[in-house]
Formats: sequence, C-alpha cells, structure tokens
Amino acid sequence: MRVLVVGASGRLGRAVVAALADRHEVLEASRTSQHYIDLTNSASVAGLYASVGTVDAVVCTAGKTPYGALTELTSEQWLTGVRDKLLGQVELVRLGIDHVSDGGSFTLVSGILSAEPVPTSPIASTVDGGIDAFVRSAAIELPRGLRINAVSATVFEEAWDAYGAMFPGATPIPVADAARAYVESIEGTASGEVLRVGY
Amino acid sequence: MRVLVVGASGRLGRAVVAALADRHEVLEASRTSQHYIDLTNSASVAGLYASVGTVDAVVCTAGKTPYGALTELTSEQWLTGVRDKLLGQVELVRLGIDHVSDGGSFTLVSGILSAEPVPTSPIASTVDGGIDAFVRSAAIELPRGLRINAVSATVFEEAWDAYGAMFPGATPIPVADAARAYVESIEGTASGEVLRVGY
Ligand SMILES: NC(=O)c1ccc[n+]([C@@H]2O[C@H](COP(=O)([O-])OP(=O)(O)OC[C@H]3O[C@@H](n4cnc5c(N)ncnc54)[C@H](OP(=O)(O)O)[C@@H]3O)[C@@H](O)[C@H]2O)c1
Ligand SMILES: NC(=O)c1ccc[n+]([C@@H]2O[C@H](COP(=O)([O-])OP(=O)(O)OC[C@H]3O[C@@H](n4cnc5c(N)ncnc54)[C@H](OP(=O)(O)O)[C@@H]3O)[C@@H](O)[C@H]2O)c1
Repeated sequence: MRVLVVGASGRLGRAVVAALADRHEVLEASRTSQHYIDLTNSASVAGLYASVGTVDAVVCTAGKTPYGALTELTSEQWLTGVRDKLLGQVELVRLGIDHVSDGGSFTLVSGILSAEPVPTSPIASTVDGGIDAFVRSAAIELPRGLRINAVSATVFEEAWDAYGAMFPGATPIPVADAARAYVESIEGTASGEVLRVGY
Repeated sequence: MRVLVVGASGRLGRAVVAALADRHEVLEASRTSQHYIDLTNSASVAGLYASVGTVDAVVCTAGKTPYGALTELTSEQWLTGVRDKLLGQVELVRLGIDHVSDGGSFTLVSGILSAEPVPTSPIASTVDGGIDAFVRSAAIELPRGLRINAVSATVFEEAWDAYGAMFPGATPIPVADAARAYVESIEGTASGEVLRVGY
C-alpha cells in the first residue's frame, strides 16, 4: 500500500514509519518532512493531497494542544488546541476522502486523556474525546468502503522524561506498541473504533 | 439555591426551569430571555456573570451545531459548531468559576450523538464527545468543591417532528426526563459524570 504518514518526524510518527516501511510505500509528511503539511492550514492540507496523488491509507500522528490549569488557560489557548489537533485532523479526513483508494483507511491520533484526565489536561482531554467521537461518526458516512479509526494510547516510555510527572503511578508503554495499533487499523478491517493501547 | 439557566427559552431549558422553579430561585438567560447572554461571545458571558452576582448552580441547555453530510460540511461550519456548543460551554465554565458559591455546580448539555452517531451528525457527535471529556477533566481541577456534569439525552418527544427522521427506530423520551437529570446534577453529589438519559 501507499501510506501517507502525517507527523512522520515525531516520536509516534517515526515508530509508525518503522512498523510500515518493510511492507509498504511510506510517504512522510510534516512541517519539516519530505512532504510539507501544516495541519492547521487547510490550504496546505489540500496542497499535500494534490501533490501526492492517490494513497491507500492516511495516518496522523500529529496534533498539539496547550497544557495548563483549567483556571489559567485562556480562550485563545482553547481555540488554538481545538484548531490544531481536533479540526486539523478533521480537515485531513474531509479533504482526503477523494484521494484515498476504495477500501482505504484513515487512522487518527487521540489519547488516554479523554478517559483518564490529569490536572492541566482539559484541552487535550476535550480534543481527544472529540476525535474519538469523530471517528465513530465519520465511519458511518465514509463512501467506497473507506474506514476510519483512532489510536488512543497511554504515555510512551520515550516521552516519560517530558510527561511522566503528569501521570503519577502510570505504566508507560513502548511507542512501538502504539505503532502496532496503527498497523492493525491500516491492514485490518476495523472502522469507527478507538484502539486503546496500554490502558 | 440560585440557579442560572442558560438556554432557558428552549425546549430543554423550559423543562429544566419547570423542574426547578418551585424549590429554587431561577435566573433565565439566553439571547431573548430576561438575562442576556450570547454563548458564542466571551464578553457577553463575562457580562452576564458580572450582572447576576453569585449563583449556586449554572445550567446550560444551549448550544447549536450545523448538521450535514460529512462530505458536504465546510470547515467554516465545523468551526462554527465547535465555537458555539463546545467552546461556548467551556467559556461558561471558565468564566463562571469565581461566580459560583462553594460546593456549587455546573451542568452542561451534550447528547447521544457522540456514542450513537447518525448520518449528518459528525459535528454534533464530535462536539458532544468533547463536552463529555471536558466535564471529566474539569471535575478534577475545579476549586472549592465545585462540581460539573453533562446531561446526554436521546431525542425528545417534543423534538420528534423536527429530528425524528434522523433517528429511525429510536424511542424518544419526554424532555422532562432530561430535566430530571439536571436536578440530579444540581441537587446531588455527582461530579465528572455524563448523565445518560434514555439510551
Ligand atoms: N507522547 C506521548 O506519550 C503520547 C501518548 C499518547 C498520545 N500522544 C499523542 O500522539 C501525538 C504525537 O505525539 P508525539 O509524542 O509523537 O509528538 P512529537 O514527537 O512532538 O511529534 C509531533 C509530530 O507532529 C508534527 N507536527 C506538529 N505540528 C504539526 C502541524 N501543525 N502540521 C503538521 N505536522 C505537525 C511534528 O513535525 P514538525 O514539527 O516537523 O511539523 C512531528 O512529526 C500527539 O497528538 C499526542 O497527544 C502522545
Ligand atoms: N432536541 C432534542 O431532541 C435533543 C436531544 C438531546 C440533546 N439535545 C441538546 O439539547 C440542547 C438544547 O436543545 P433544545 O431542543 O432545547 O433546543 P432549542 O429549543 O432550540 O433551545 C435552544 C436554547 O438555547 C438558546 N440559545 C441558542 N443559541 C444561543 C446562544 N448563542 N447563546 C445563548 N443562548 C442560545 C436559545 O435561546 P435564544 O434563541 O433566545 O438565544 C434557546 O433557549 C442542544 O444542545 C441539543 O443538541 C437536544
């Protein structure tokens, strides 16, 4: 298959590329990868699809949200997070439908925080919950047998230094475990599902 | 208690007011009610809180999202829906924290569509899923014993003429059933919960 990986230069993206590269043609995309895309810019999403042609799977491992105390986050931060990880991924799906081959798939990224929030995570939690509901709803409308799922993982061992303090007592997982959920979504038959990893 | 009901002029809002009025002081708010608020305008949310003073509970029964086929909805419609029902309710909580008395509560509105989407509901589904995750996350950070819940109902008998065709085979509920979930949230002890009604 031809698989477009958006966020290919990140922790999770690199692991997904590694899990796919021996059996698939992988197109790496991000703001600094071979194929340019800025998820927060609709024209750049459309431009990427126009330049790569038809693919069999679209993967997203990109999407950022601000962190901060509920009482300190601003409405600008809320809007920024929603436009980035939530509406950016929605745009990747909306604009991608005509560029994915029959029976192909979208696999988005959400995360544990919608189900198990921690202090300072309200934007991430809200966005992750929105993504999970989006894949359930988009699945019933996608044409031509297209499928869509989300991968929702707990914190990665590889990110423990950065985020471990937010998750007291949590057991981090190797990012490769989350990458395997992407493989399951791409090569399997699931649709409308949230693939939980490590929780 | 003093209870501020945002969306008091609507189907659900009127039912909540009716369920509260004999035991509580109810302040009715919306764009056309006694107390003016436009949820999509942050200054108007702040203005309402400044004018009503301290309340013991804030209820929201307002929040609109565009409906349409996944392949036809525009990015403008996505942003409009998210700013209205999702970020409007977040703003109502954020700006309300200092105006709710110790141990008081917020009760927001989501809906069945996050769990059981129908065609044309992707924006509503995504927003409802975001609200449900938001209340789980906000609950763990609210100060002074404040609580927060969401009421997530199936379609109302009173709205069946307008929306019944979207829910083939569904069993609608009297809107008064959903209003009782608001009473449970306001007068009970739950926090961080999604109170499902009729599904
Ligand atoms: N880290 C964890 O423990 C963990 C656990 C569960 C879920 N997640 C979720 O997984 C996702 C990725 O996490 P990560 O740890 O792999 O993050 P990361 O290492 O920071 O990687 C983020 C990737 O996204 C790209 N990116 C960022 N902004 C972009 C934009 N506007 N447009 C296009 N690409 C953009 C980055 O590349 P450029 O900078 O080159 O654009 C990079 O490739 C996040 O949504 C996170 O919430 C993470
Ligand atoms: N109808 C159903 O079967 C059903 C089932 C489950 C969940 N829900 C959810 O319940 C909520 C209310 O539904 P409903 O049927 O009661 O709707 P409705 O009859 O249209 O009432 C909406 C209420 O919100 C107010 N409102 C609208 N936009 C506003 C804004 N920007 N700022 C402040 N107030 C605003 C309206 O008053 P003004 O126009 O005066 O501002 C009105 O009071 C919706 O979020 C809906 O998704 C509905």
